[in-house]
Amino acid sequence: MKVLSDGLRRMPAATTLVTSAPALAVTGGRKVTNFLLDNGMEVVVLPGHRAPIVTHMVWYKIGSADEPPGKSGLAHFFEHLMFKAATTNHAAGELGRAVLAIGGSINAFTFYDFTAYHETVAPSALEQMMSFEADRMVNLILTDDDIKTERDVIMEERRLGIDNNPHTMLEEQVDATLWQNQPYRIPIIGWMQEIEKLTWNDANAFYDKYYRPNNAVLVVAGDVDPETVKELAEKTYGKLAPGPDLPPRTRPVEPEQNTRRTVTLSDARVSVLSFSTHWVVPSYRTAEPGEAEALDLLAEILGGGNRSRLYQQLVKGGIAAKAGAYFQGAMLLDATRLTIYGSPRGDAKLADLEAAAHAVIARIVKDGVTDDELEKAKNRCVRSLIFARSKQYHVANLFGSTLATGGTVQDVEEWPDRIRKVTADQVKAVAARYLAFDHSTTGYLLPKTENLM
Amino acid sequence: MKVLSDGLRRMPAATTLVTSAPALAVTGGRKVTNFLLDNGMEVVVLPGHRAPIVTHMVWYKIGSADEPPGKSGLAHFFEHLMFKAATTNHAAGELGRAVLAIGGSINAFTFYDFTAYHETVAPSALEQMMSFEADRMVNLILTDDDIKTERDVIMEERRLGIDNNPHTMLEEQVDATLWQNQPYRIPIIGWMQEIEKLTWNDANAFYDKYYRPNNAVLVVAGDVDPETVKELAEKTYGKLAPGPDLPPRTRPVEPEQNTRRTVTLSDARVSVLSFSTHWVVPSYRTAEPGEAEALDLLAEILGGGNRSRLYQQLVKGGIAAKAGAYFQGAMLLDATRLTIYGSPRGDAKLADLEAAAHAVIARIVKDGVTDDELEKAKNRCVRSLIFARSKQYHVANLFGSTLATGGTVQDVEEWPDRIRKVTADQVKAVAARYLAFDHSTTGYLLPKTENLM
Repeated sequence: MKVLSDGLRRMPAATTLVTSAPALAVTGGRKVTNFLLDNGMEVVVLPGHRAPIVTHMVWYKIGSADEPPGKSGLAHFFEHLMFKAATTNHAAGELGRAVLAIGGSINAFTFYDFTAYHETVAPSALEQMMSFEADRMVNLILTDDDIKTERDVIMEERRLGIDNNPHTMLEEQVDATLWQNQPYRIPIIGWMQEIEKLTWNDANAFYDKYYRPNNAVLVVAGDVDPETVKELAEKTYGKLAPGPDLPPRTRPVEPEQNTRRTVTLSDARVSVLSFSTHWVVPSYRTAEPGEAEALDLLAEILGGGNRSRLYQQLVKGGIAAKAGAYFQGAMLLDATRLTIYGSPRGDAKLADLEAAAHAVIARIVKDGVTDDELEKAKNRCVRSLIFARSKQYHVANLFGSTLATGGTVQDVEEWPDRIRKVTADQVKAVAARYLAFDHSTTGYLLPKTENLM
Repeated sequence: MKVLSDGLRRMPAATTLVTSAPALAVTGGRKVTNFLLDNGMEVVVLPGHRAPIVTHMVWYKIGSADEPPGKSGLAHFFEHLMFKAATTNHAAGELGRAVLAIGGSINAFTFYDFTAYHETVAPSALEQMMSFEADRMVNLILTDDDIKTERDVIMEERRLGIDNNPHTMLEEQVDATLWQNQPYRIPIIGWMQEIEKLTWNDANAFYDKYYRPNNAVLVVAGDVDPETVKELAEKTYGKLAPGPDLPPRTRPVEPEQNTRRTVTLSDARVSVLSFSTHWVVPSYRTAEPGEAEALDLLAEILGGGNRSRLYQQLVKGGIAAKAGAYFQGAMLLDATRLTIYGSPRGDAKLADLEAAAHAVIARIVKDGVTDDELEKAKNRCVRSLIFARSKQYHVANLFGSTLATGGTVQDVEEWPDRIRKVTADQVKAVAARYLAFDHSTTGYLLPKTENLM
């Protein structure tokens, strides 16, 4: 086992599966228990007894979009420090070694609006995990040496993970072009010139402000019962004093996009050309009723898999090596994006593929979708869910990310019903409202050309 | 006379003239006197006795780039409030009426890094102006009614000045695409959705923090002597208590641009097509020694007027109705841009014109500039300066903007010498270093087309 912490840029693939799927099935028949500790920490218990393991997750309502100006990367940096530093009760690395000793797994991730820490262990070790996580929630001792060492680690992570890869370099500059005001324009891992200036003071101020039981959500899924979880949570997390109430998480929002924007990266390492076109659209948290659900189904119909229009017409049609779409509707506090993408096949030109993809959208805007393909799209969501329902990590992830971004257990539970209620007219309406070519942002990945002009 | 306050997006045309010109000539032989009041307010006196008038300017070291996230437009909004509100000593509008009564003029402007208030009056009214400005520096009484009324005025200013004009709409989204991290990406007038939420609390906190003698520069130019100015300044501004020291003005800086970006606005109101290509380059405040001066001369040689390469080759050559370049090197704390632009003529295609403009740059990158054209570019700066030297407002503007952005009187005085020292190799070097096509940002203004794809 390795103690990892990942600067998660998009949802992990497995999570994508879950969050685009109806939620009632997600619980896999589990009865959800949800309560507050006296100090304001929210707890969700998702019992499931197929295997003698338990997933224990602590979600903090703090992510990269909450960072102060000029301090990009701080949330992710802090996630690293949580593994690096000692606490008043434990030596540095002790938690990782304890998990290793019992054959469990441990990890963490940082996203725009939350940071999560999780362990998967035998139920008998749950109390120990809670005790460790409660301890590092408030008792971390950061040294200047920790800061320096870990900052170098993250700078190297950025060099290897972003700056050394044309695809991620492009993605980062597309993000900053799509979002002109909203903080999602800033990379989660941070801009290099800001990472390298993060200080002990920055990290400590961040910890003092945000790492508090009343800014956290505990999710426990697996072979446990709610009473035991409650008892253990009160014994561990329940002992922690709450911090002051935090102000509402209100961020700058996007102005209306009146332009078409492109971002082109030309690099000698690129052998497969590609494009991706993005539109600013509402997320589940910001949408008018029904719109986010309609966008989810629109993305599924457009490019959600082998039955989608983009796949059928472009990949089966022979001009695309790949083509698809996605809508990142959940896990976010603010507006989000709907994306289509593709790579040409054989002699097909990238511009022709892009035009063909936009023509697929134009047809939906003009003629809508059929009831049959809408029904099948709804069913595909359910099927992908059935595949995932036994995965306690994904269930925990879904509830944790929803609660950490201002949603409720009820939001998750009613999600499949809301998906079921979407009409073909609603799908057509969101396509027409949001997917205007003239108001899109497209990234192009191209091989190096010496003389473009 | 009308009491105006302008949301200045670029330097006003007349100022462009001055700031791209050697500074010694700017002083028009005036001996510059520069001193500090006890409360930390800096004073510059620029005597000139050709006409019995005096320009009185108060510069605050606060601009739109200093606004808190989500509060765009606050600096400019506050500039309006300074004219709208009463003080403990004067009724609302009294200053404007006093200037009107003596046949003077009064105005103000907000830029990224400063806000300036100025009156031009007879020397006998200087003390009265100082007294008024000193009073409103600390004694403003903002009412909620002032906030509401003036917020509506600014929203209307934005509707008419930006949102109703394809050119300014495009410019705004180009700015936000060129700058991905630095605050210059945010419009000075503010995003509409943020202007409409600015509150009495926002305005008051801003005033309390930034409107203080130790955050201001007084510039007096014209028919006065330094001793009189000093005496009057001590009698008026000198009486004000300083505020707490402000933290250094350190802002997020740009990451390296690895991509070519485009922003296209298609609008039925557009009849003249145009492009403008922008590169992030250092300003006088951020450049290595000599680079900003070389960029100033590069812009002059490229597109500074009728003798420039872009004009000679594209306009005289018959494919451009207009073509030019500019470098906004001064008046800024952070990195800036070098820009080329053009509109096609007759049957010329926009893409061909753009390619021809980039070819002009490519030739400078490859072959450099001639000593002769460099010398003439230096001389053009001086000549434009001679034209401006008698304009006391421009001289005051140059010193005020330099001092308000961390520069010194010496910086201004030595500027012409630094320009004179630039070599042809330095001009070639900055062109090669900064003007890569693959790392540029281009805006296109196009007529509406119904089916682009």
